[in-house]
Amino acid sequence: MVDSKNLLYEGKAKSVYGTENPDEVIMEFRDDMTAGDGARHETMGKKGYYNSIITSKIFEILEENDIKTQFLELIKPGTLKTLKLDMIPIEVIVRNRATGSLVRTYPFEDGTILNPPIVQMDYKDDDFHDPMLNETIAEALNLATKEELETLKSLALKINQILSKMFEAIDIILVDFKVEFGKDSKGNIILGDEISPDSCRLWDSKTLDMLDKELFRQGHDDEVMNAYEEIYNRLLTDYDKKKWNL
Amino acid sequence: MVDSKNLLYEGKAKSVYGTENPDEVIMEFRDDMTAGDGARHETMGKKGYYNSIITSKIFEILEENDIKTQFLELIKPGTLKTLKLDMIPIEVIVRNRATGSLVRTYPFEDGTILNPPIVQMDYKDDDFHDPMLNETIAEALNLATKEELETLKSLALKINQILSKMFEAIDIILVDFKVEFGKDSKGNIILGDEISPDSCRLWDSKTLDMLDKELFRQGHDDEVMNAYEEIYNRLLTDYDKKKWNL
Ligand SMILES: Nc1ncnc2c1ncn2[C@@H]1O[C@H](COP(=O)(O)OP(=O)(O)OP(=O)(O)O)[C@@H](O)[C@H]1O
Ligand SMILES: Nc1ncnc2c1ncn2[C@@H]1O[C@H](COP(=O)(O)OP(=O)(O)OP(=O)(O)O)[C@@H](O)[C@H]1O
Ligand SMILES: [Mg+2]
Ligand SMILES: [Mg+2]
Repeated sequence: MVDSKNLLYEGKAKSVYGTENPDEVIMEFRDDMTAGDGARHETMGKKGYYNSIITSKIFEILEENDIKTQFLELIKPGTLKTLKLDMIPIEVIVRNRATGSLVRTYPFEDGTILNPPIVQMDYKDDDFHDPMLNETIAEALNLATKEELETLKSLALKINQILSKMFEAIDIILVDFKVEFGKDSKGNIILGDEISPDSCRLWDSKTLDMLDKELFRQGHDDEVMNAYEEIYNRLLTDYDKKKWNL
Repeated sequence: MVDSKNLLYEGKAKSVYGTENPDEVIMEFRDDMTAGDGARHETMGKKGYYNSIITSKIFEILEENDIKTQFLELIKPGTLKTLKLDMIPIEVIVRNRATGSLVRTYPFEDGTILNPPIVQMDYKDDDFHDPMLNETIAEALNLATKEELETLKSLALKINQILSKMFEAIDIILVDFKVEFGKDSKGNIILGDEISPDSCRLWDSKTLDMLDKELFRQGHDDEVMNAYEEIYNRLLTDYDKKKWNL
């Protein structure tokens, strides 16, 4: 089914393939892990396996909460069938606690609770190192209209509410996360890409241990896959595992 | 009148002194010129003279157009009497054309006309190198409320309209500028600081020659004071010169 001749796009961690159906694409979650603007690149055991399943589960939950997503089907671990989207080159970041680049850029103390959360939009452009946008700059670059930017922000905040509760129920703090949106063939704004430990900061509620890609950024490569497996185990029910033959 | 014991604040180019009247301060425009995050520092001939007069003239014109400013009186060239403000640590930047840091940070071509203009807010914090803000970050840092941020933005855009017309009439393109606001003793938001060739990019409409601090940033130190004198000459009327004994 995944034919390399149909490769539409190869990113740093996923590959996107065309199908017979012009409205659908196959998304392959690879095991590649990068950090530091591409400075580090490793292959991580079963990363594609875990991230594809975690994304499927999270997108299903979001659908149940009236968020439109690209998710159609987990074909097999590592491989999703999704809606083909015309991606908006904006990374929408929601932060419930200050950490990472936020505390390097502004005088926030690491771990500070942010209520209301911070919503940040970065321009997805490797050559310019994903600079932060504001509304007027995003408009001037023709990335989105004022109304679309408002939609991205309110969708991201709604996703934050749903996922914060979901993670709280499995004793995880959703510290921050990144989402990307695209337009379907009718122009509707739909959640695309992935939501996984690659794109979220997840802390154990009790120990405050990191359970996400931050372990890799900080060089604890040997702990990364245990953390992803831990998220997988807390998130997936026996019913999910049966349904998806895991 | 300016007594060093009353020094309230010494900035990179101006000094602020208290007076007998708790609602008023004396602002001294010094000849110091800095660039590159403080990397370069020179003393420039009559800079304080020109900038104090240009600021006085521009603030008078803004007052005539219903913008509240701190301006009270040009005591003598170099020295203004102004309202004492509790400054909001935000630099509000309006851009009518893309240049400078904007073209280094984003893929705009140098000189591109921006219509509608870009409005950018930077956090005035030397230790963090004045990072760009967005609304949610400014709120989280307690710099201003959502409503105040809206006010800053709309005031900056109104100032842009007034000044763009004013400069057009003397054959100058207002490329971009920076303003700072503060609150008076009653909490009203008032335009403070200065508007001068130190804080604007000004291009001759016909030749597109630079007539502002950018000459200094680019190392053309010997041309700086001629440019400031040119702005002074085009802006000040004979009546102004008589009134202020220039
Ligand atoms: N439904 C979709 N249709 C088409 N393209 C999509 C869809 N969902 C996601 N994409 C795109 O697939 C690409 C693959 O993502 P991947 O994370 O591998 O690469 P990247 O985004 O370039 O790298 P990084 O996330 O590390 O910056 C991304 O550009 C993403 O926007
Ligand atoms: N009406 C006012 N009352 C009190 N302080 C003011 C008023 N207007 C301006 N100021 C403050 O006076 C200070 C002097 O400005 P100056 O430009 O010399 O220094 P700076 O802002 O530290 O340097 P730079 O502008 O190069 O970053 C600024 O902090 C400005 O906010
Ligand atoms: Mg990605
Ligand atoms: Mg200043």
